[in-house]
Amino acid sequence: MRCSVYIATSVDGFVAGPNDELDWLASVERPGEDYGYKAFIDTVDVLVMGRRSYEVVLGFPEWRYEGTRVWVLSSSLKGSDMRHGAELFAGSPTEVVAELRVQGVERAYIDGAAVIRSFLEAKLVDDLTISVIPVILGRGIRLFGDALPHHDLVLEESRPFPSGLVQSRYRVA
Amino acid sequence: MRCSVYIATSVDGFVAGPNDELDWLASVERPGEDYGYKAFIDTVDVLVMGRRSYEVVLGFPEWRYEGTRVWVLSSSLKGSDMRHGAELFAGSPTEVVAELRVQGVERAYIDGAAVIRSFLEAKLVDDLTISVIPVILGRGIRLFGDALPHHDLVLEESRPFPSGLVQSRYRVA
Repeated sequence: MRCSVYIATSVDGFVAGPNDELDWLASVERPGEDYGYKAFIDTVDVLVMGRRSYEVVLGFPEWRYEGTRVWVLSSSLKGSDMRHGAELFAGSPTEVVAELRVQGVERAYIDGAAVIRSFLEAKLVDDLTISVIPVILGRGIRLFGDALPHHDLVLEESRPFPSGLVQSRYRVA
Repeated sequence: MRCSVYIATSVDGFVAGPNDELDWLASVERPGEDYGYKAFIDTVDVLVMGRRSYEVVLGFPEWRYEGTRVWVLSSSLKGSDMRHGAELFAGSPTEVVAELRVQGVERAYIDGAAVIRSFLEAKLVDDLTISVIPVILGRGIRLFGDALPHHDLVLEESRPFPSGLVQSRYRVA
């Protein structure tokens, strides 16, 4: 069972603006170019996200995870807050992984900065695909914090796209 | 006159450990591979660094900037603290650039996290070459802070090296 991160950041390491703004991602939108997203999501059995990410994506005009099983980690949401078949789970990353293992899950997509950090803290992340957008955002929500354990990484692939996005895939050593 | 940044960071955006540790850079050291450093430094007329960087490099067994003119920005150091022909300058990034222009300098290499941030704050950086080392350091001294102005960037080149280092060169739009 693998836990995978697949996320876009600014050159200065933000995943969203201070008020969850994602408009800066538009600079790399190109017709017919999904930067490997579909190929990645097709390998994922469960997408694990936090409450904040869930509330952001609920606000989008369309549910973007149709066909993907979604778990929302939260101790404050209730089952009746769940939409689009998303499942609620209250527990630590270790408990999440234990439960996913029991359910025979082979790959979980760990999404949202806070949840990613909690999985890194618990040393439960197996690989990271980071797409760096050509912008210095200046302020916002950081992907990595200031108190994570050291992880040695192995670069498996890196490539630049014509839009200026640089995507690198790392395996945790 | 151009101001250029050329720096290595961890995947999580640190340029040094909490106590200026740089030992993690050793993971990408390869005989005969300088990741374009010599080609870059040969285009530089003046290297501009802060007091902290200066004190760190003074502690190395050899002075690593032989043959390069070095300016140290500090309001606390004195001329008599200067070694290896380094010159002391007390002034803002705008004043530095004005003086370098008067002196006919064509390219300045802006080094050290605090100095780089002060030049970004003043929107005086023209290009950035960032070498990302395959490690999550977890804590340390950040290259980018939480209060910089937005910069749109243009990716000019990006390439991975066998060591896992990914070097990307951006021009400020």
